[in-house]
Amino acid sequence: MFFMVVESIGENVTEIAKGDVVMTIFLPDCGECVDCKSEKSNLCSKFPFKVSPWMPRYDSSRFTDLNGNIIHHFLSVSSFTEYTVIDIANLTKIDPLVPPNKACLLSCGISAGLGAAWRLANVEPGSTVAIFGLGSIGLAVAEGARFCGATRIIGVDVKPEKFEIAKKFGVTDFVNAGECGDKSLSQILFNGKSLIGCLFGGLKPKSHVPVLLKRYMDKRSGRDSRICDE
Amino acid sequence: MFFMVVESIGENVTEIAKGDVVMTIFLPDCGECVDCKSEKSNLCSKFPFKVSPWMPRYDSSRFTDLNGNIIHHFLSVSSFTEYTVIDIANLTKIDPLVPPNKACLLSCGISAGLGAAWRLANVEPGSTVAIFGLGSIGLAVAEGARFCGATRIIGVDVKPEKFEIAKKFGVTDFVNAGECGDKSLSQILFNGKSLIGCLFGGLKPKSHVPVLLKRYMDKRSGRDSRICDE
Repeated sequence: MFFMVVESIGENVTEIAKGDVVMTIFLPDCGECVDCKSEKSNLCSKFPFKVSPWMPRYDSSRFTDLNGNIIHHFLSVSSFTEYTVIDIANLTKIDPLVPPNKACLLSCGISAGLGAAWRLANVEPGSTVAIFGLGSIGLAVAEGARFCGATRIIGVDVKPEKFEIAKKFGVTDFVNAGECGDKSLSQILFNGKSLIGCLFGGLKPKSHVPVLLKRYMDKRSGRDSRICDE
Repeated sequence: MFFMVVESIGENVTEIAKGDVVMTIFLPDCGECVDCKSEKSNLCSKFPFKVSPWMPRYDSSRFTDLNGNIIHHFLSVSSFTEYTVIDIANLTKIDPLVPPNKACLLSCGISAGLGAAWRLANVEPGSTVAIFGLGSIGLAVAEGARFCGATRIIGVDVKPEKFEIAKKFGVTDFVNAGECGDKSLSQILFNGKSLIGCLFGGLKPKSHVPVLLKRYMDKRSGRDSRICDE
């Protein structure tokens, strides 16, 4: 349940109202701290990302187990439930016209891969991109690279059968990593490469997810555009 | 011998002339290829960096051992000798007024550290910078960070005695890595950090080294400026 309708709101919440359609996102975006205001980071410093946190502003929980014992939230959103209580920092209001079964894909993995190509690698038109691992996030990287205008997208995986699926996401070439021998991290770095770690693909939930949803709705309406033009 | 005077030039060489003062730099900068023309890379794709190459344009050497056997060049410059033959891609013409004993420091390690702070980490005024390893390159990183306006520079090393020297280069705080336990690379990346590999600190030899030398000469003349303002 990454996509939900607001049942009620707490005091001082003005960003959303009862009845709004919202997306839950595990990465907080308080919108107030130095990092949320910076273009350089998507890691909120007011509410740092935690796997099993309390409610961020109260050091308490809104869940108990069957015996009444207090239990932690999961990824700040506790979304494997029909009703949940979520801090406004973990909600992004979205256009209710976007089909829920499409919008929910942007709540985690697809944004992670797509954002990695768009916001972190800064893929440009005409680029050649190599993707290591053609799972769902790797395929989302391919989609992001294609959106940004990459002309050659090389998929690297140990399972050649994944290439057929990957072609649908824009992957143009395949390298079987099982046949490449050992290359170590240090060799990659020695050649001037960068290894960039990220959460949520470097995307800022409240500013970048709406851009991606607009892009989807534009495409549905026959208007195609590169996200990198936004 | 990273700093020398031109004895003679080959055919088609117009960038330098006999008598010019030049600096040898192991990283080629042909000035013609897509990477040398790009602001995004300092890795020449026409003459890729090699440790023991032939002359880059001829697949031959200009050196022999005492028995007359042909031997490879070292880092394209073969500078442990009184006379050498170097491709124009590995030479940067410099202001003859710069003292040789200062200019030569920019031929390798100092540029590597200084460039890493300036061109790769893009240190900004007011930044906090942590440097892992306070050897000569680490100290050059501190110098680059200071030039760029960093206000807090944290040196990390296993030898506390290095902190005293490091203070002279702008390091303000010290962390003894030997007392920090184990943290793995994956934890760093999981927190959204980047690991950036580089050669020559990401500097382009022919365009960035003259900026640094000008900065030195300005400072000698009492005019101080941040290199990041250039």
